[in-house]
Amino acid sequence: MPQAKLLEYLEGCGAEAKPNETPGMDCSVVRTRHDLYLVSTHDFFYPLVEDPYMQGRIACCNVLSDLYAMGVEHVDTVLMTLAVSLQMTPAARDVVTTHMIKGFRDCAEEAGTSVTGGQTVQNPWPIIGGVASSLCAPSEFIRPTGARPGHVVVLTKPLGTQVAVNLQQWTRKPKHWKKVEGVVTEDMVQVALAAAEESMARLNRAAARLMHAHGAHGATDVTGFGPIGHLSNLARAQHEPVRIVLERMPVIRHMCDVDDALDSLFKLRAGHSSETSGGLMVVLDADRAEAYCRELEEADGQPA
Amino acid sequence: MPQAKLLEYLEGCGAEAKPNETPGMDCSVVRTRHDLYLVSTHDFFYPLVEDPYMQGRIACCNVLSDLYAMGVEHVDTVLMTLAVSLQMTPAARDVVTTHMIKGFRDCAEEAGTSVTGGQTVQNPWPIIGGVASSLCAPSEFIRPTGARPGHVVVLTKPLGTQVAVNLQQWTRKPKHWKKVEGVVTEDMVQVALAAAEESMARLNRAAARLMHAHGAHGATDVTGFGPIGHLSNLARAQHEPVRIVLERMPVIRHMCDVDDALDSLFKLRAGHSSETSGGLMVVLDADRAEAYCRELEEADGQPA
Repeated sequence: MPQAKLLEYLEGCGAEAKPNETPGMDCSVVRTRHDLYLVSTHDFFYPLVEDPYMQGRIACCNVLSDLYAMGVEHVDTVLMTLAVSLQMTPAARDVVTTHMIKGFRDCAEEAGTSVTGGQTVQNPWPIIGGVASSLCAPSEFIRPTGARPGHVVVLTKPLGTQVAVNLQQWTRKPKHWKKVEGVVTEDMVQVALAAAEESMARLNRAAARLMHAHGAHGATDVTGFGPIGHLSNLARAQHEPVRIVLERMPVIRHMCDVDDALDSLFKLRAGHSSETSGGLMVVLDADRAEAYCRELEEADGQPA
Repeated sequence: MPQAKLLEYLEGCGAEAKPNETPGMDCSVVRTRHDLYLVSTHDFFYPLVEDPYMQGRIACCNVLSDLYAMGVEHVDTVLMTLAVSLQMTPAARDVVTTHMIKGFRDCAEEAGTSVTGGQTVQNPWPIIGGVASSLCAPSEFIRPTGARPGHVVVLTKPLGTQVAVNLQQWTRKPKHWKKVEGVVTEDMVQVALAAAEESMARLNRAAARLMHAHGAHGATDVTGFGPIGHLSNLARAQHEPVRIVLERMPVIRHMCDVDDALDSLFKLRAGHSSETSGGLMVVLDADRAEAYCRELEEADGQPA
């Protein structure tokens, strides 16, 4: 179901899909009785990659990413959302569930937090995800509302994650594979998938920390709506009217060629590719962008 | 899947199904950087009753109940967990989803909080539930660890909710209905179901507030493990060794007779009946129990 339809459900009954303070934020932000802000987010997913441990890591990165997009560096706690699949054999279910949990939990620890509770059900389809919360003083998070003309937007991870994931599945589906075999080899797909998995399983934590160091004016993370969808939300959230121009963005190698050969099936070049656990798009003063990217590259060991 | 099996999954990989501070608590409790405590819980459910609005209310009550069991009266925010069923017709799906959300949201507002975000997916089965969080000073919540010999435990809602719900479904299943038709009439089932729905959709908020007024030493809420399951967890959580004796508990009228006729299918008399959005079991000084019950009855308009 397209997210737009889901938003209709929520709006139709007066509930808000977006948090109650500022539209365009990736988190709920509520002022508590103690004059501190509770920044929290809830997100869960059906598995996308074949390795359950990797899937657990990616799910955790994706959950935490909403907090990082608010410039929140310190996560107070994580609750896990888990569904054990009824459509797997008991043996497969045990292995998959155990490894998904371990990947999720390891990633939470890497982020300096821990899983302190959650809910598990049986379900036809497996699910992994959770809730991340951080209690923040006003200086500890950055509202995505401060963009002004002249600022630049930096994307911290490459696009093309879901193209790579789908492509890997196509290597076992001759009918699909035929459409791209003149463009990529199976080896190239494996390299692309490895890049996608590394990217999806990488925390946006350093990106959040450096937002403070370089005076960022707001950010959002790239997930299901693609870069233009999320940039549009970001633009609408600004106090000053801004027009955000998408000029150049990093893309996993060969994924644009693949999408071109597929008549833009994944809408990658158009900026509408659905992404999983994508990077932050960070609004910076133009003269801070280079230093931000350089320091993020040093922190993550990956080009930003 | 029995909860015990799920706990094994979590324990097997080192994750904790229970919060990271005290075993036996119904919530996650973490001390934040600001020397306040973030008390939070995550719970979601497959529908149990036929009225989607009522189901939404019950789900919200059940989520909030974990905070109330910690003596938390003020909920800072709620995030919604929602799955839209792929097995319904689009028309049914729209109606069910909209009404479930409305019931959930109305109940959150009745609790003095609001739904500020959440996650929605498509799933074979519908799901409703969420996350509730409260930032608390140490005096604003009550750890379930202070029971001592001589204290009494009060249950604030009657048992038998799931017996009533199942019984109502049996009125349309002749094979099942035959087993109980000598014990209850369809009218009696409707009255029992109405009592169960009223109970499940009632907030445990007044029960939580009165815990402070009457110096309660801890509590737990009654859900899937039944009263003995939850009392056992409670007993294990105490600082002093205690033995909790279950003497008498309120039960929805006729539900014990039904369960007797079914050879204890629902284990009601044995104290192992699975309940939904059940009451709090509150540990009190023996001489405070009567006043606690009386004031709760005044607040809720229901016998405690």
